[in-house]
Amino acid sequence: MEERPLILVTNDDGITAPGIRMLIEIMNEIGEVIVVAPDSQQSGKGHAITVDSVLHCHPMNINDGKQIEYTCSGTPADCVKIAKNQILNRKPDLCVSGINHGANSSINILYSGTMSAAVEAGIEGIPAIGFSLLDFSWHADFRAAKDFIKKIVLNVLLNGLPEGTVLNVNIPKLSKEEIKGIKVCRQANGFWKETFDKRKNPMGKDYYWLTGEFVNRDKGQDTDIWALENGYISVVPIQFDMTAHHAIQKINMWEL
Amino acid sequence: MEERPLILVTNDDGITAPGIRMLIEIMNEIGEVIVVAPDSQQSGKGHAITVDSVLHCHPMNINDGKQIEYTCSGTPADCVKIAKNQILNRKPDLCVSGINHGANSSINILYSGTMSAAVEAGIEGIPAIGFSLLDFSWHADFRAAKDFIKKIVLNVLLNGLPEGTVLNVNIPKLSKEEIKGIKVCRQANGFWKETFDKRKNPMGKDYYWLTGEFVNRDKGQDTDIWALENGYISVVPIQFDMTAHHAIQKINMWEL
Repeated sequence: MEERPLILVTNDDGITAPGIRMLIEIMNEIGEVIVVAPDSQQSGKGHAITVDSVLHCHPMNINDGKQIEYTCSGTPADCVKIAKNQILNRKPDLCVSGINHGANSSINILYSGTMSAAVEAGIEGIPAIGFSLLDFSWHADFRAAKDFIKKIVLNVLLNGLPEGTVLNVNIPKLSKEEIKGIKVCRQANGFWKETFDKRKNPMGKDYYWLTGEFVNRDKGQDTDIWALENGYISVVPIQFDMTAHHAIQKINMWEL
Repeated sequence: MEERPLILVTNDDGITAPGIRMLIEIMNEIGEVIVVAPDSQQSGKGHAITVDSVLHCHPMNINDGKQIEYTCSGTPADCVKIAKNQILNRKPDLCVSGINHGANSSINILYSGTMSAAVEAGIEGIPAIGFSLLDFSWHADFRAAKDFIKKIVLNVLLNGLPEGTVLNVNIPKLSKEEIKGIKVCRQANGFWKETFDKRKNPMGKDYYWLTGEFVNRDKGQDTDIWALENGYISVVPIQFDMTAHHAIQKINMWEL
């Protein structure tokens, strides 16, 4: 690559989140950075897009650096769409999303705004990576992740990604010295055991808070959950063709 | 099955939509029906869940019938979670979502609230099907779909679904006589070519409407788009393990 690569940066915690500020800092060392990120918290928004309301998007500088920044009123997927269509004058060489404050391993990829931005870029043929740190705190320490993120990004820029795939990267909450390395994994088979916290509002009407506990029912040692629990950074290549190809033959035997 | 099956019905167009009313009518002929559906339009919400706000959920009867109905202030995925946790006293034998007013073929499954409800049920081990009609109109005619939906549901109740899969069923906008049959397919490789309609608000500030055109770049005759364009109902088994297993070996060759 002769020119410096063009890198689109987004996230789901909003443009001011420490996680995206660290990702911008790392990407500034690698390429030309354009940030298009939500103006508010978009956690748990999955692959939502804004079809029933209008979108706002305007330039904004949160802090110093070489990056150009925009903030958008929509979801992470909206940010990628509007970046491509209204802001960037060429297809970026890479899209990175995050660093998310909290895990997006296993099935949580489905609920994740961070990963939906990466998937949206992937659909457009842009190599894309979502990064998440296993620390929900706003004041999480992202420094240990820095060199590992750089290594993964440089590999993607050098090698590209197999067609129709994007990377889901999760980083354990450990010091740089404690992190044992990077493992390429499959998505663990887990689920959420919900509990709804039922309360009464001041008018006496019931309402609920959704809470829950993640359960890993997958004992494999080749999963993202195993890697994270054992001190590794997990890299799961994911695809947006959701067809269960192995099931087609079975269902073809039905009397339909 | 000795008892009549317990069927959970939901959708993303809201509990009053004609599509879900038709689905309830059909399910009443097959089993015990519990409806837990959003109180408002949830199109394009993908697999969003409500983590930053509270949920309301209460009994409601929209029209006559044997079904028991609840409406919920959240997303389709929230509806399935709250149904399972707060309303149903046993695991349902089936979850059906829809009938959506509009297509959810190809990549649109990612943005689809209809399908996220089915996927959410699938994660819980409940056989699940999302139904969509290729007609966005509120006054769409769902009658032609009736017998086909019944046939697919009875097959799922009889045969079950392969572990980790749910069905995405799309129905062409044709009369019953014109529909050629049911085809088991893979998800077509398509994408959205967005256009943002840029406008000025009364205060002179720019805003955008997201619009676009769906582009099918997949010439295969085994896809859902092909089936629908050729007069068939498409049935795509989809999985929520998004791992691109074929890519793991390739990425393992990188220097990470």
